[in-house]
Parts: sequence; C-alpha cells; structure tokens
Amino acid sequence: MSQVLIRNVAVLVVPESGECRVDDAQDIRVDGDRITTITPTDASPAESGEWEVIEGGGLLAVPGLVNSHTHSPMVMMRGAAEDVSIDDWFNRRIWPMEVNLTPERVRVGARLACAEMLLAGVTTFVDHYFHADQIAAAAVESGIRADLAPTFFSSAGPESIDAAIATARDLRTIDSRITAGLGPHATYTVSDDDLRRTADIAQAEGFRIHLHAAETDDQTRSSLEKHGVTPMQVLERTGVLGAGALIAHGCGIRESDLHILQRYADRTTVASCPKVYLKLAMGEVTPIRGLRSAGVRVGVGTDGAAVHNTLDVWESLRMVALTQKQREHDAEWMTLSETLRLATRGGAAAAGLADRIGVLEPGRQADIALVDLSGPHNQPVHDPRAALVYSVRPSDVITVLVDGKIVVRDRQLTTMNLDEILADARALAHTLVDLSQGGAIQHYAP
Amino acid sequence: MSQVLIRNVAVLVVPESGECRVDDAQDIRVDGDRITTITPTDASPAESGEWEVIEGGGLLAVPGLVNSHTHSPMVMMRGAAEDVSIDDWFNRRIWPMEVNLTPERVRVGARLACAEMLLAGVTTFVDHYFHADQIAAAAVESGIRADLAPTFFSSAGPESIDAAIATARDLRTIDSRITAGLGPHATYTVSDDDLRRTADIAQAEGFRIHLHAAETDDQTRSSLEKHGVTPMQVLERTGVLGAGALIAHGCGIRESDLHILQRYADRTTVASCPKVYLKLAMGEVTPIRGLRSAGVRVGVGTDGAAVHNTLDVWESLRMVALTQKQREHDAEWMTLSETLRLATRGGAAAAGLADRIGVLEPGRQADIALVDLSGPHNQPVHDPRAALVYSVRPSDVITVLVDGKIVVRDRQLTTMNLDEILADARALAHTLVDLSQGGAIQHYAP
Repeated sequence: MSQVLIRNVAVLVVPESGECRVDDAQDIRVDGDRITTITPTDASPAESGEWEVIEGGGLLAVPGLVNSHTHSPMVMMRGAAEDVSIDDWFNRRIWPMEVNLTPERVRVGARLACAEMLLAGVTTFVDHYFHADQIAAAAVESGIRADLAPTFFSSAGPESIDAAIATARDLRTIDSRITAGLGPHATYTVSDDDLRRTADIAQAEGFRIHLHAAETDDQTRSSLEKHGVTPMQVLERTGVLGAGALIAHGCGIRESDLHILQRYADRTTVASCPKVYLKLAMGEVTPIRGLRSAGVRVGVGTDGAAVHNTLDVWESLRMVALTQKQREHDAEWMTLSETLRLATRGGAAAAGLADRIGVLEPGRQADIALVDLSGPHNQPVHDPRAALVYSVRPSDVITVLVDGKIVVRDRQLTTMNLDEILADARALAHTLVDLSQGGAIQHYAP
Repeated sequence: MSQVLIRNVAVLVVPESGECRVDDAQDIRVDGDRITTITPTDASPAESGEWEVIEGGGLLAVPGLVNSHTHSPMVMMRGAAEDVSIDDWFNRRIWPMEVNLTPERVRVGARLACAEMLLAGVTTFVDHYFHADQIAAAAVESGIRADLAPTFFSSAGPESIDAAIATARDLRTIDSRITAGLGPHATYTVSDDDLRRTADIAQAEGFRIHLHAAETDDQTRSSLEKHGVTPMQVLERTGVLGAGALIAHGCGIRESDLHILQRYADRTTVASCPKVYLKLAMGEVTPIRGLRSAGVRVGVGTDGAAVHNTLDVWESLRMVALTQKQREHDAEWMTLSETLRLATRGGAAAAGLADRIGVLEPGRQADIALVDLSGPHNQPVHDPRAALVYSVRPSDVITVLVDGKIVVRDRQLTTMNLDEILADARALAHTLVDLSQGGAIQHYAP
C-alpha cells in the first residue's frame, strides 16, 4: 500500500454550510486510497514507514473537482458545431455526427477527455454517453474516478435499452473507482413506459438515474402543452425521482416544481453547466437558489465539449457564480464559499459519492488537487477562495491524486502518454464529423 | 534595427467584415517595429540580413489582444472586494481603499499588470487611472503598448483636473508606444462644466476622452430623473462625443441613444467587460448589436482586477460571445469571427490606433501573439477560431512581440524580472486594502 505525505500545504476546508476557509501549513497523510490525517505541520507526528513526500510549500490543496455532467468522448467534436441554435446543434450537427460513433472512437475521445480533466484537477466525472464500457476502460487506465450512465433512447428499441442497462450492471464490477447509473437520454426522448421500467430496475438494483430534463423553459412549456405536466412531474409519476435522479441542467424547472423536488431532496441532485446555456441562447440558467431552498444538492458540470469546448470545471464553477448573481440580481448571492461547495460537495453528491469524496478529511478517498497561486494572474492573494473562483486557471494545477495515487505530477500525466492520446485523437477527428453517411441517431423536437 | 522572421506559422486573418480565416504555413517578416511581409512559407523569398528566426511550426499567430478598458494598478486589490453589491463595492471597499494610493504602489501594481497581460498575449491596454505617469513608466519598461487616461473627479477641485490634463500632455512625448487620452471619471462624478472644458481641450489638442458612462440602466434612469437627459445626451451636449469618446461599459445605453451615437460613430468606441456586469449583478450587458448597427466600434476589456480578478482578454472575449448570445436570445449572433474582430480591430479602435494595430498585415506595427493549440483542452482542432474563442487559455500563449520586439519568449518575460515584480506586489498588497485611515476618494450615488 502506498503512503503519501503532502507536507506543509495550505488546505481548503469546505464545510457543509457557512464559509469555506484555508488552513495554512498542514500535513496531509494518505495511506492507500484514503486520507488518514490532516495536522498542522509544526505539530505533525514523526514519519514512519515508507512515505512518499510531496513538498506542498506555496501550494493550496483543494478537493479534486467533480465534473457533474458531461459526455466525455464528445471532445472529438470540439469546435465542430459553433454559432448554431439549439435545434440546429442537435439536428444538423451533433446527432447526425453521432451516427459515426464506434467503440474505438469513443475510447480515443474518452482517453483525451480523461487527460484534459486530470491535468485540470478534475478527479471525478459523471458521464452520460454511448459505449460506456469504452469510457470506463479509459477512466481505469487514466486513474480518474467516474460515474457512468450508458445512454439510451426509446426510439432505438427495447433491445438497445436492455443492452445499455446490461452495460451499467457490468460497469459496477470492473474497478473500485467506477460506479454506474442508468442513462435514459431525456424526458422527451424516452417514453414514460421506458422511464417507469428504468425506475423499477434502479430501485430494485440500487442504481441512480442520470438524465436530461427541463433543459430549457421551452421544453417545460412544450411538455405542458403536449402532456399537461412539467418534466419534473413526469419524473415523479414514472418513479425516476423516487429511485434517485441526477438531473442535467434543469433550467426549465418551475417554481411550482420545487415542492415536488423537495420531497425527493435526499436523493436528487441537479448539474448546472451555464456556459452551455449562454452559448446556445437557451434563455435561462439553472434555478439554483430555489433548488437549494428545496434542499436539492447542486453540482457543477461542463456538459460535452461539442458545446462547452472544454472540460474545465474551474471555468464552469466561475460561470455558475457569475450567472447566478446575474439571474438573481444579487451580487451577494452565490458567494465564493457556496460556489466552491457546489463544485466539490455538490459534485460528490451528483456522483453518488457524497460520503466518500468532495472534502479533504480523514477517512475520505484521497482525491486532491494541488494548486499554485503564485502566478501573476493570481497575485497578490487577498483571498485564496476568490483566486479559486475568479482567477485560477487549469494550468495552475501542479499535482493531482485520485484514490491516493499520484496521477499528475509537475503538470504531467503519470498514467498515460499524452502525445499518443493526442495523435490518436487527431487521426480520428475527421471521422466523427463526417456527415456523408446521412441520417441521425435521433431528432430534436421536444 | 532588429529583424524577426516568424517562419512557417498559421496566421489569423481578421477582415473588416465577414469571416475570419486562418492561413496555414506563412512567413511573417518584421523589420524594426513593423510587419513588412506575410508570405506563404513555400514561396518565401530568400533570407537577407540578420534575421532572428522564430520557428512557428504548430503555432497560430494572432494580432496581439487589446484590453480596451482597465485600471491596471487595481491588480493590487485582486480578491479584496468579493460578493458585494455595486454600491458596497464602491463605497465600502474600493473608494475607501484608494485613499491609500501612492505613486510607488501604483507603479508596483502597473508592473504586475503589464506582466500578467503580456504573458497572456495582451499587447495593448487602454487604461484609466490615477498616477498615470507611473503606469506609463511600467508600460515602457515592460515593452507593452498603452493608451493612458489620467483620471479625475470634479470633487477633487480644478487644480486636480488641471494636473491630470497636464499629465496627459506629458505622456504624449515619453515613448512611441504610449498614447494619452483625457480621463474624466464618469458623467455622474464630473460636472457638465468640467466635461465641457475637457471636451474643449480634447478638441483643441487632439486628445480622445476615455470615461465611464451609462454603466448600468440604473444610472441612466437616475440621470433622467435628476437631469432629464440620458448619460449619452450629457456626452453630446458637453461636446465629449464631438471630441471623440471611449465609453466604458455603456450597459445603460438606451435604444433612443443610438441615433445620437450614430452621428459620432466615426470617433466613438465602447468597451465591453461583461464578467463585471454579471459579477456585480448590474442587470444588463453592453447592447453591442445596437451599437454595431449604429456603426459604433466596440472593444473588449477587463475593467480593473479588483472586480474582474484577471486581466485576461481571452476570458473577456469569451464572456462577450456568451453574454451577447444570451442577451439577444440568438445563438447565431456574436459569431466566432465577430468576437475575434472585437478583441483585435475593435480594441485597436478603442485605443485610438485603428490604423496601426489590430490586424496582421504589412505596414502594421508588429504586435503579435503566438498561440499553441496543441494542448489536450484544444484538441482536436476542427476550427481554430473556435479554439481561440471558447477553449484557449493564457497559458497557451508562447511568444509575444510588441512593436517588433520579443517581449515574451517561451512563456517568459524578456523585459522584466517576474519574481521581483511579484515580491514587490506581495510586500505592498496589505497597504492598499488598509481601511484604518477612514475616508474615501469619492462617494457612489449616481
């Protein structure tokens, strides 16, 4: 079992509520996959055993960030669907492109995604995509932690749904860092019957359900017109909320939906990815204040890079802070502390790992990013929390541990060959955006 | 005279209108302070003379970015005024802190700001602050280009205004890279009489006027209530628009103001800094679509780092694209090309240098940033313009030239000692945020 000592490091402390703080000059001891002690350096016990020492002087240890909602292999389509409406994004770009998905292309994309995230201090991602077994393999190889929901549409037929659910079952056993959820695409692409069956299986087998719902208020309006109910009401009546759901986006969640969500707050999380809402001119952002009042936990995500262009959770959490202040017309809301809490504890909840990751405390899995705030864009540091929310860049992340293992050291991956990953991605990139085949995996008409 | 050859580089071409494009495999020749030729590498003339060669293979040359509105020395207050309303930001934090300004502290802050900007590929900044002679000295030392407007309030009395204007006159002669404007603070802190006098001097001596106006719609409403006119009407009737103005923010510019601005479109620019508008929950962003329809040129800025937290123009231009799509409910607006045009040509206009910088063409000043898109967060590159707007980071900037001189090489400043700059900033940081003196340089009650 490896033992790591991060010596003389500042530590970001993220309490369940109230202000985050930074404790200077701490020693973090990691034994195997867990944090065992965090003690002031000057009162630190004498070393014993074979400790690998990381000098933390001048660095800030933060809980590894969680990407609460993404489609990691879509990095392969980065920059290929720009300046288009949400309808065209789905119907003229992405869903026609996804005809080209193959296991190999997904694997290559997922490896690139894992590299990008780890180098930025993102230690867990919550994924929703096809060929999830390939994504799992890439995650295992890279050393990152992942919660994976194999995606399905009703239009693809029951065998396809069964196959996705079977994949979810398989994923549960392959590695301690991999967890699985069930991944119906959305309330508007999966029938109520299929959602009900999904919820039954989730309840019976202890899965959580990760899906898109009420992405825009247009979708909510359309659902009310077509079915007389909001997407949240669909999730309730089909049992999805009862089973436990991670809802991606939720920008169209209405005030009147909040009392529904409140009843399931212990098992509901919402992932907010605001760069996407602005870029696609979706009209709203996630109503986080209302959700938090209802007791619903919220995480921060990037969505896929075919719209977000990066898998940078620092960027996402900054956009959450900015767009929430804007939405509520309240500069005193979505404070530094609350924003950092969403990106760490909130993300842990979104990943179904609220008790295992998200904070730096003895007993937690050792998922840690060491950040260097000495660059000119962060200096002087009047408040390190402000630096983390408003000025830090992924390039400030120096060292990253996941499950106690050093996966990034001095800004370099220890687990994979980045040049090879990039070469593979470049070699296959054109195949993903080829529209010569015609067809599409689905049509967007919510 | 130095001669630089950037060999085999991709070049971002930013036309006056229409699509930006990237020309691969070009040789850029720089003779002294100007670009002399840009030719395909395979048709490049034989070398002659003493060329310093920069290998551009795999890099993208972009016009150095322009920070169209900032208060550079405010980096010294980075992170010291978080999660507060605009009223509290001014009245409880910044204006009380600015009692502590001294020439030395401004100089130290400006040096740090120049370092941060150059390392990010920002080659020109348009500044509005006190002790502008100190900022000029820092700019000259660093090698950056700057347009500086010494700031004044009416409340400080006529001698103070005279001194600021005298400083502007002095700045014109110190270096070819330094230009000067007149810097009344805002329509709500400078009297109409003083604005009139400023406009007269500007007209007579060929200065442009850089000031805050209609920062929020609240300010416009208040101006209408108190004076019966909008801030743009104030600028017109006092002659400021006639003299030529750079208007910071302008989020409160009304539809009815556009026909006024249209009359002065040849000499008016507006700087948009949207991260700030969201962070301070100001309610609106700059109405760029209307301004562009009226023929007014628009640049991208960061404002001061006491609210923007960075001087990163990549971040600002991304926020402009995102918030403009959001504002207009139109994902097809503020395209990649238009966004890049604002940050380059628009910025050049905001700096009063529309004919000298902002594009890479023979005859222009050689202000060039070489960007490396090979990092995993930019790959694969389906569209390099999309990478520049939505995924690039300041850490992707490798080499920077200003006026033909290499000021950043391999991500290191060539002109200044960064460690010394950072040490100076850290040593003085506490003095800027000390509120024990009491008082404030001004009161915000627009």
